[in-house]
Amino acid sequence: KITKIFITHLHGDHMFGLPGLLCTLSLQRSPDASVVPIDIYGPLGLRSFLWRSLELSHSQPLLPYAVHELVPTQDQCPDGEFRDFSGLDRGEALAQAPPGTVVHLDAETDSYLLLEDEELSVRAFRLFHRVPSFGFVLEEKPRPGKLKVHVLQELGVPPGPLYGELKRGRAVELGAVRVRPRDVLGAPVPGRKVCVLGDCAGPVGEGARRLCGHADLLVHEATLQDGLQDAARLRGHSTPGQAARFARECRARRLVLTHFSQRYPPDAHRDLRSLLRDAQALMGDLPVTLAHDFMTIEVPMKN
Amino acid sequence: KITKIFITHLHGDHMFGLPGLLCTLSLQRSPDASVVPIDIYGPLGLRSFLWRSLELSHSQPLLPYAVHELVPTQDQCPDGEFRDFSGLDRGEALAQAPPGTVVHLDAETDSYLLLEDEELSVRAFRLFHRVPSFGFVLEEKPRPGKLKVHVLQELGVPPGPLYGELKRGRAVELGAVRVRPRDVLGAPVPGRKVCVLGDCAGPVGEGARRLCGHADLLVHEATLQDGLQDAARLRGHSTPGQAARFARECRARRLVLTHFSQRYPPDAHRDLRSLLRDAQALMGDLPVTLAHDFMTIEVPMKN
Repeated sequence: KITKIFITHLHGDHMFGLPGLLCTLSLQRSPDASVVPIDIYGPLGLRSFLWRSLELSHSQPLLPYAVHELVPTQDQCPDGEFRDFSGLDRGEALAQAPPGTVVHLDAETDSYLLLEDEELSVRAFRLFHRVPSFGFVLEEKPRPGKLKVHVLQELGVPPGPLYGELKRGRAVELGAVRVRPRDVLGAPVPGRKVCVLGDCAGPVGEGARRLCGHADLLVHEATLQDGLQDAARLRGHSTPGQAARFARECRARRLVLTHFSQRYPPDAHRDLRSLLRDAQALMGDLPVTLAHDFMTIEVPMKN
Repeated sequence: KITKIFITHLHGDHMFGLPGLLCTLSLQRSPDASVVPIDIYGPLGLRSFLWRSLELSHSQPLLPYAVHELVPTQDQCPDGEFRDFSGLDRGEALAQAPPGTVVHLDAETDSYLLLEDEELSVRAFRLFHRVPSFGFVLEEKPRPGKLKVHVLQELGVPPGPLYGELKRGRAVELGAVRVRPRDVLGAPVPGRKVCVLGDCAGPVGEGARRLCGHADLLVHEATLQDGLQDAARLRGHSTPGQAARFARECRARRLVLTHFSQRYPPDAHRDLRSLLRDAQALMGDLPVTLAHDFMTIEVPMKN
């Protein structure tokens, strides 16, 4: 069930399908009125596009959604290519549109905080492309370690609600004895981290490297082979070698390559293997995977 | 090679793919500068949608196109559902957009003349749906009959350019003798007529019946089976029986049904055969065909 959608940049092959997807989700949704709105995150301009597309097609009221727009900086695309969509429909059409927020770059962390709850956070960071592009980091918070049952028994804590209190990090009083969580919990279990970068010739600023450190899974585009790095850069794209170097810098544990040029169709196995080799040569023992449409990858929980 | 695109109505499943299609065509087009612009015909509001979608995705200048917008009338959809898009972006954003024309209903013919040249014409007519919908008629002009070579020889007309003049309908002087085209040409060959209707519960006004008379091929939607006619009407849709009755009224020579509800998936052969039977029962010996994606149908030239 889709509750959040992330758009990396506003090129048509990355967002023209969005109004149709919302209509499809709208048709599929249960008639249950307490449906949770879909949160959509993407570059500034997306809210106007969605609102107008759905308005024109009379599809507006079927599905509650909110658009959270990231404000890009001018250095995310070549000089002269930047367009300012900050005024688009503000104060007129969008006054009737579903709610939205505008998220500015946090200069201190060089990133955009998109959501955070007790279990996880999602942040965005800046990338360089022909139009401003973004990457997203989904990071789980560490989970509390296992309860040391033998210690609890020695301390005389009875099984039941007190166990839950301690697991949630709260101290417990047993008569005169105060039991602290750190006395009875094992080491916290680190969360998982998944990073997905949009089309890019590389990061802008330090946000990408800071946020992607020790990623369990890093998805990076590799449009053209290593030998065509100049052509790739000119079009704002990357090669497998670039992707792998970035993954190594971040100490990512697994690299997934995606967004291959049309010159490498899915049945061009030799060409695709060569892209894989370009990246694998730099990744050593760490796994490299070529993505395909509808691929799902399981990132195992840690112990 | 696509040079004209016709959009029947502004529901998402009939137009959200258009910006992407234009981008794909744009990538495929030859670098030849003398490329002919693509003409796009559809309801009012389409030009703003296209312009804004392509503008936002920075895809604007790659492909020359023009949008010809049909102005619907309020009786093409249920009371209270009509939305007036006539002011959308006029005089502001669209001032920079590719050229466009606005086509109003011609009250006399109850239709919209979209294009006409020596070989064919395309007209639109009004349909009733949840949003205003249109049908399109592509009609070839009659071609001149065959030259009667034995008559030409008797009259002493030498083979060569004079034959062409006569075939093009121009009289020819041979000394004192004036040869008129009707003296030497067989009966004109009638052109073909193809009618494609958008989603609808039926026509509005007399345009549809007038224009679709003696169609060689008529494409009509049949969303729900005959037993569900009330549900179909409520949603602005038709049944196979309705489609066939309209085809019979028009004396169409062949009926193609399309736009089947999701309750009849492509592999539900029995259900689909039942839709076919509903229509065939009314069409007698005239062929009825169920359309599928990417189907092509040849309409033979007449003799």
